[in-house]
Amino acid sequence: MGKRLIAEFLGTFWLVLGGCGSAVLAANFGGEGNPLGIGLLGVSLAFGLTVLTGAYALGHISGAHFNPAVSLGLWAGGRFPLKDLVPYVVAQVVGAIFAGWVLWQVASGSPDFVAPDPAAAGAFASNGFDALSPGGYTVAAAFLCEVVLTAMFLVVILGATHARAPAGFAPIAIGLALTLIHLISIPVTNTSVNPARSTGVALFAGSGAIGQLWLFWLAPLVGGALGGVIYRWLGEPDR
Amino acid sequence: MGKRLIAEFLGTFWLVLGGCGSAVLAANFGGEGNPLGIGLLGVSLAFGLTVLTGAYALGHISGAHFNPAVSLGLWAGGRFPLKDLVPYVVAQVVGAIFAGWVLWQVASGSPDFVAPDPAAAGAFASNGFDALSPGGYTVAAAFLCEVVLTAMFLVVILGATHARAPAGFAPIAIGLALTLIHLISIPVTNTSVNPARSTGVALFAGSGAIGQLWLFWLAPLVGGALGGVIYRWLGEPDR
Amino acid sequence: MGKRLIAEFLGTFWLVLGGCGSAVLAANFGGEGNPLGIGLLGVSLAFGLTVLTGAYALGHISGAHFNPAVSLGLWAGGRFPLKDLVPYVVAQVVGAIFAGWVLWQVASGSPDFVAPDPAAAGAFASNGFDALSPGGYTVAAAFLCEVVLTAMFLVVILGATHARAPAGFAPIAIGLALTLIHLISIPVTNTSVNPARSTGVALFAGSGAIGQLWLFWLAPLVGGALGGVIYRWLGEPDR
Amino acid sequence: MGKRLIAEFLGTFWLVLGGCGSAVLAANFGGEGNPLGIGLLGVSLAFGLTVLTGAYALGHISGAHFNPAVSLGLWAGGRFPLKDLVPYVVAQVVGAIFAGWVLWQVASGSPDFVAPDPAAAGAFASNGFDALSPGGYTVAAAFLCEVVLTAMFLVVILGATHARAPAGFAPIAIGLALTLIHLISIPVTNTSVNPARSTGVALFAGSGAIGQLWLFWLAPLVGGALGGVIYRWLGEPDR
Repeated sequence: MGKRLIAEFLGTFWLVLGGCGSAVLAANFGGEGNPLGIGLLGVSLAFGLTVLTGAYALGHISGAHFNPAVSLGLWAGGRFPLKDLVPYVVAQVVGAIFAGWVLWQVASGSPDFVAPDPAAAGAFASNGFDALSPGGYTVAAAFLCEVVLTAMFLVVILGATHARAPAGFAPIAIGLALTLIHLISIPVTNTSVNPARSTGVALFAGSGAIGQLWLFWLAPLVGGALGGVIYRWLGEPDR
Repeated sequence: MGKRLIAEFLGTFWLVLGGCGSAVLAANFGGEGNPLGIGLLGVSLAFGLTVLTGAYALGHISGAHFNPAVSLGLWAGGRFPLKDLVPYVVAQVVGAIFAGWVLWQVASGSPDFVAPDPAAAGAFASNGFDALSPGGYTVAAAFLCEVVLTAMFLVVILGATHARAPAGFAPIAIGLALTLIHLISIPVTNTSVNPARSTGVALFAGSGAIGQLWLFWLAPLVGGALGGVIYRWLGEPDR
Repeated sequence: MGKRLIAEFLGTFWLVLGGCGSAVLAANFGGEGNPLGIGLLGVSLAFGLTVLTGAYALGHISGAHFNPAVSLGLWAGGRFPLKDLVPYVVAQVVGAIFAGWVLWQVASGSPDFVAPDPAAAGAFASNGFDALSPGGYTVAAAFLCEVVLTAMFLVVILGATHARAPAGFAPIAIGLALTLIHLISIPVTNTSVNPARSTGVALFAGSGAIGQLWLFWLAPLVGGALGGVIYRWLGEPDR
Repeated sequence: MGKRLIAEFLGTFWLVLGGCGSAVLAANFGGEGNPLGIGLLGVSLAFGLTVLTGAYALGHISGAHFNPAVSLGLWAGGRFPLKDLVPYVVAQVVGAIFAGWVLWQVASGSPDFVAPDPAAAGAFASNGFDALSPGGYTVAAAFLCEVVLTAMFLVVILGATHARAPAGFAPIAIGLALTLIHLISIPVTNTSVNPARSTGVALFAGSGAIGQLWLFWLAPLVGGALGGVIYRWLGEPDR
């Protein structure tokens, strides 16, 4: 069990360091309006590639969840034992927080670094709604968006790892599904679908993000469970 | 049959939610001219990734058509029974419309949301020609473009799923073919090659898009059938 | 033989329609300086995806060369019979010219269409050097660049299709190598590494591109042969 | 051994020519602020694709390290014999320098070419910290960033090539890991994680980059060894 948890720690560390790191360090490089920066497209790609690469590297050790909503959804889908759920989630959250800390050490080494404004949308790559949504989206839109996208994420995960799907390709499908989810929803919530990712940076982003963290636990967990239940039924042949 | 139709519903929902969602929510993020937005490149990638991920997740259930022109082309190519054609197309169109509805719920949660202008090109990610083409392209250019690209899409689909093609890679080839098709033709028609996708958002985009919907059924279906016939002949060895 | 030639025709048609089409129709969408356009990155991706998708679809029919320099390099590398070289090259050039013609039909359907200026760099996605190089590069830099990149392209092709390379992945490696080559060299020559691609659009771009076409036959063919010879020696185990 | 070293020479040549070449020639195409240029996202993709394509082409010959930190990390991870370390590193450095030379020949063929300013951050795609960091990051931030990212790079390499990982996908995971690393850290150090890559262009970038080269040997080697040790322990099942 120990090495599986270390793998989850390391994979979630990689997800937050890479995804949030690209957002904090590179999205606006050269100043807002400068096309040199990687923009939302680059950040979307980075999030997906953390999972694609982490899943090829660590999937054979822990299953490569890197996300409490994924662990819950895999349990709901009948693929993960309940007794492992809490240890996995703890390892994921600790890995995410450690990534937030390392990212802070690097980011604060720039002469342009200013401590995140807790009232600013997307501060330190945090997730939010209403005033803390990058596009000012309401809590209802944010909740709906996170539930639907996490549910579809689990459908892709459960489908691509199904025994009847082509073997070996799941990390590509799953990683690029996370890229796709970011391409859609960064403007809405800065994209969570992952409570560990939200927690890892909220602690450094300040009171605003922390105060909204409940939604980024609740909605992805609801969506993950929903996706797990849907695919559990759908994936069994009835023909 | 029931689960196959649900898979087609879900996959087409994913295609329209992800592809059109990225266009509506993220393409112009930060305002026109802001390089933070994902632009046409990001939208092209999003459309392709919906199919890549959906095909790995659901391909083993329904074959992952997600598109009436693909279903027709697979029939023309000798790979899909005629009796399944209508149920598949209905499931696809219903999934696309449901995606349009969900997207509307999310998009309207932004303080910047304005109801689509039925006379504006690309309103709510709809397809169009002449005044409703993003680049003002004529109906003839739009028709030619949709026919040729759908035909080539079917050649890729039938070729990559052929028994002599490497197994397991088809979702990558097919998904990225859809990305490529968007990289070429968003300026011409906002890219359809998929009547369900066009229908799913036209109902929300208003009278302009609905009035031009005939072309985005006719041209992709003609192109799909053409591609099916071409590959049916080409793919059989004559050596 | 007939179907192999049709496959080469169709694949080269796809390469030129997709690669040059994305450049002509979408690279500068919204006007120069508008980040909505797909830019050189989008064009690079499009060229690569034509080969990735075309190779999965048609590779099992013709080998998916789609490029006279590739056919020559495969012969130099000991993988392609000399007697098939001329028919392949003819099919490729005819497919490329047909793509140029279809692209013209679509592009000229825009109200903003102006006939290509034969003295403008990159007109109708043509290749060039000196005054016709996008960045004004000299004929020597253009020649060196095309030779080196085509040689490395053949090394990737011969290596990724070697019996000891993992099976089935070659279209990914080869397609993305073409993307990489474009990411490097569009500013230098608008990137050829493919005499058929250069010919297919030069005929529509006018006298300037036609007058410089010799370099985009000579340099890719020299580079292709060089890469073939290098890998023929390198790929045979000496241990 | 000879052909293995030539493969390392050629692969590292490709890595530096493609990655640094895209940065020097295409990142800012059309002038700073012009979205036609490929930006940091395009450069990140180019670096990754050199490794993805080089590994499919040459991996079966030499193992496709193309990087002294990778060779050291593979040794630390128990996958590479110590006696081969020095010859591999020499071949890599020579290949990188040759790429720097070829890139200079091409780049200097532009009328806009100016010799790199040794005091400018990122001159000729060189790596740097403090005044030579693209974002002005301190030496401490640069060191931490290079160590952590190289360590994670080795975790991905050792994990994706592990006997229990799906066969054949490692070049995709490893290449795209390098893309991800660049998406995060170009603003910090212009991204090295590869002493050969840093050396190959520093010699042409001038005194500034040469004077900081020690960090881009030390940090990647420390990180590579660290990653090798971590995965050596993690990858062995304890269940």
